[in-house]
Amino acid sequence: MMSPERPITRSSRTEHFTSSTTDTQRATMVDIKCTADFCLIPMGTESPSVSRYIAEIQILMRESGLKYSMHSAGTTVEGPWDQVMDVIGKAHEHMHKLGVQRVQTDVRIGTRVDKQQSFEDKVTAVEKILNEKDQEDAARA
Amino acid sequence: MMSPERPITRSSRTEHFTSSTTDTQRATMVDIKCTADFCLIPMGTESPSVSRYIAEIQILMRESGLKYSMHSAGTTVEGPWDQVMDVIGKAHEHMHKLGVQRVQTDVRIGTRVDKQQSFEDKVTAVEKILNEKDQEDAARA
Amino acid sequence: MMSPERPITRSSRTEHFTSSTTDTQRATMVDIKCTADFCLIPMGTESPSVSRYIAEIQILMRESGLKYSMHSAGTTVEGPWDQVMDVIGKAHEHMHKLGVQRVQTDVRIGTRVDKQQSFEDKVTAVEKILNEKDQEDAARA
Amino acid sequence: MMSPERPITRSSRTEHFTSSTTDTQRATMVDIKCTADFCLIPMGTESPSVSRYIAEIQILMRESGLKYSMHSAGTTVEGPWDQVMDVIGKAHEHMHKLGVQRVQTDVRIGTRVDKQQSFEDKVTAVEKILNEKDQEDAARA
Repeated sequence: MMSPERPITRSSRTEHFTSSTTDTQRATMVDIKCTADFCLIPMGTESPSVSRYIAEIQILMRESGLKYSMHSAGTTVEGPWDQVMDVIGKAHEHMHKLGVQRVQTDVRIGTRVDKQQSFEDKVTAVEKILNEKDQEDAARA
Repeated sequence: MMSPERPITRSSRTEHFTSSTTDTQRATMVDIKCTADFCLIPMGTESPSVSRYIAEIQILMRESGLKYSMHSAGTTVEGPWDQVMDVIGKAHEHMHKLGVQRVQTDVRIGTRVDKQQSFEDKVTAVEKILNEKDQEDAARA
Repeated sequence: MMSPERPITRSSRTEHFTSSTTDTQRATMVDIKCTADFCLIPMGTESPSVSRYIAEIQILMRESGLKYSMHSAGTTVEGPWDQVMDVIGKAHEHMHKLGVQRVQTDVRIGTRVDKQQSFEDKVTAVEKILNEKDQEDAARA
Repeated sequence: MMSPERPITRSSRTEHFTSSTTDTQRATMVDIKCTADFCLIPMGTESPSVSRYIAEIQILMRESGLKYSMHSAGTTVEGPWDQVMDVIGKAHEHMHKLGVQRVQTDVRIGTRVDKQQSFEDKVTAVEKILNEKDQEDAARA
């Protein structure tokens, strides 16, 4: 772990962005898996109800081949960084194609290198702890 | 504008994801400009102070060639979707290289097709309205 | 609906904040129901794994009496604005009591006046549309 | 610091939520200062341009007496938890009064007990590190 008190020398950074990335070609790619939870909001729509748009996005998710799960406040998706960001970008593009003039999305993105953990594993880990607590409480009563 | 009451036929969707995207090669790209405001959080660090990490990210931003601006709650960056998502992904990768085992980022991403607007233009537009209001109030008094 | 092109006169605003709110007493309250989805991150913890902390928050949620649901990227809770913000604030306070020195939370908050809709209803509405689409596609094949 | 490996006994939690909170009266309050950065989105508006609404929110901020700063991706505000959440809630209420039927806000909320730090201090801390790095690099060249 880098000590926050010690300055980081430039040499550890300069290997980034040495290739010339252009608009039409991607020279380097991000090589990391991530979990992203996104909540997309079409703006300037006639109606405040947007479930029809959200359904469209679910179809994009299904077609992407990535592992995903919809909940009431967003959609969680996991996979390689580039593919995950692509599918969210394609969701924006698709909204515009449907006539939405402005789209705003909030995304929570997580990456970790200490262990592999699928997004369902996180819920299971918390539920396991809660069950243990409940049993302790019951034993104490 | 799509009417939210009318069903959308499948034909408007099937052009997506027809190419076979793989982990190592990107067949299709998102062709849209965006503004992203991100707040990156290194997790499991020794200290709750993370300014040294945020400084590292600013250097990545500088090297990216993209237009960006740091504020107290995040960094705003604008450019082509892929490049913007790349630089955020590279920020995650860089944190891991520095020894951070888990990184969580919140991103607000906006795209719009009704007009071109740089992120500073948004602040200017609001300030213009506020100034007009103040002058109206002064004239009324 | 306010026309975005017409200036809003000051009279529509001045009724706000006329009472003197102090740190210890709340004179006015927000009188609106909301749905909030929050993702709380303890910072500066020894380990990048935080499921034990998240379990603590679930216990707070349970004790709050509010309707809530945990998913892999956060916890969704609905109720009166003040109570919802209180329980999230109490989660921050509880983390600090457990020794966490810094806490960062991302919250997505929604309010609407066009209809009452519980957070599960949103998922049901999208799934209904998806099922209809699938049936249409099947009928067309 | 709580060890993440050691179970937390129930006694450390049960002091919460012992008072009976009701919809109309708040028995307990959150006693903590916070910094919140929020991005409010009016939904179902006629136009995708919302600067007129954002200007309205800036006037609420000004009248709140809290320290705040607008940037292109949101507004940062700091103060006691309850007051900060109140002003965001009042922003939602005000939008509805103006005819907006649905409002969605993303908020990043931070609290810390290790030190007092104003939101501008965070930017200053990062800039100080960047300047030191630049001087080191110049000295090395």
